[in-house]
Amino acid sequence: MSEFSTAAPYRVRQAPARAHYDHETAHAILDEGLVAHIAFVTETGPVAIPMFYVRDGQRVLIHASRKSRLMRSLIEGAPLCLTVTLVDGLVMARSAFHHSMNFRSVTVHGSATPLAGEEKVAALALFVERVQAGRSADVRAANAQELKATEVLAIPLVDVAAKVRSGGPLDDEEDLSLAVWAGVVPITSVYGTPIDA
Amino acid sequence: MSEFSTAAPYRVRQAPARAHYDHETAHAILDEGLVAHIAFVTETGPVAIPMFYVRDGQRVLIHASRKSRLMRSLIEGAPLCLTVTLVDGLVMARSAFHHSMNFRSVTVHGSATPLAGEEKVAALALFVERVQAGRSADVRAANAQELKATEVLAIPLVDVAAKVRSGGPLDDEEDLSLAVWAGVVPITSVYGTPIDA
Repeated sequence: MSEFSTAAPYRVRQAPARAHYDHETAHAILDEGLVAHIAFVTETGPVAIPMFYVRDGQRVLIHASRKSRLMRSLIEGAPLCLTVTLVDGLVMARSAFHHSMNFRSVTVHGSATPLAGEEKVAALALFVERVQAGRSADVRAANAQELKATEVLAIPLVDVAAKVRSGGPLDDEEDLSLAVWAGVVPITSVYGTPIDA
Repeated sequence: MSEFSTAAPYRVRQAPARAHYDHETAHAILDEGLVAHIAFVTETGPVAIPMFYVRDGQRVLIHASRKSRLMRSLIEGAPLCLTVTLVDGLVMARSAFHHSMNFRSVTVHGSATPLAGEEKVAALALFVERVQAGRSADVRAANAQELKATEVLAIPLVDVAAKVRSGGPLDDEEDLSLAVWAGVVPITSVYGTPIDA
């Protein structure tokens, strides 16, 4: 099983038993998520911005207007942290303290590199393929003006840590007899009936 | 309609027509979300950490182990950005460029203040109430050791901006006759059948 060579400062410190550094776990979470939160630092402090993204092998691609502050910062090499979180359930314990949440998350530290030319064109197709396989061949591809207006950045999957919590509540032995329901309320994200334009 | 007095650097710049600064819009999004991503800056750069949270009037409460790096940084007054994002649908356009996502997000800039004493105890009950109304009276409340191990921080809702995209694709006039399906695929988060512990 291949593992990310996550540098020491980026290894999971809180509940390290829930950390996973193998490619498979991180890739599966990244492939299921639709939105990443990207943290970067501006003149006025840290910002977390939600972004659509797609995984392409050992990198994550994001795209946005070339005029956006995020894109301008990242192109200049600003360090970033990209986090994808999937919520799987509410964990209801018999004590307030042991309430928790089932989740799967991936955190990527690094910086981004802009793509150009054919690589940029191919990357843009991947965003369309992410929402529907085969769709990039059917829609009108970006024209010169749209290509110019859009930046596509690649973030390498090097410093990567996944964290997963699953299963029921971990109540203290002496609380097990309390007369309160305990268990997990699953949460899933579902697609509804498509609405024609 | 009350509005947040969001400072200039924190006003929405990308697609400002989608920005909302009224209390009602931001509160509704914060009340629907379960996980916030909190960006803060560490020695090794920015980090975005997913956190359960609850809104309490004009503030957002978070809690975690007092030993966590996030809590230690925030207690020292580190500037933060808290973002909550709800994904409502995939927007499928006739051109690759006009593909989009329907979403509702809230971004809060500021810093956090630790709660203590009765205020901390009351805040902890709100986290339990958030997952099930009335539950805080039924579960075992935190004991002295658990209280000590947990930090509860309040983040005031002052610099707050919501951003909302809804509706169908905004295709170019000349693309409307293309033979490709266009519309919105709704996405919702649903609770499943509870699983007994």
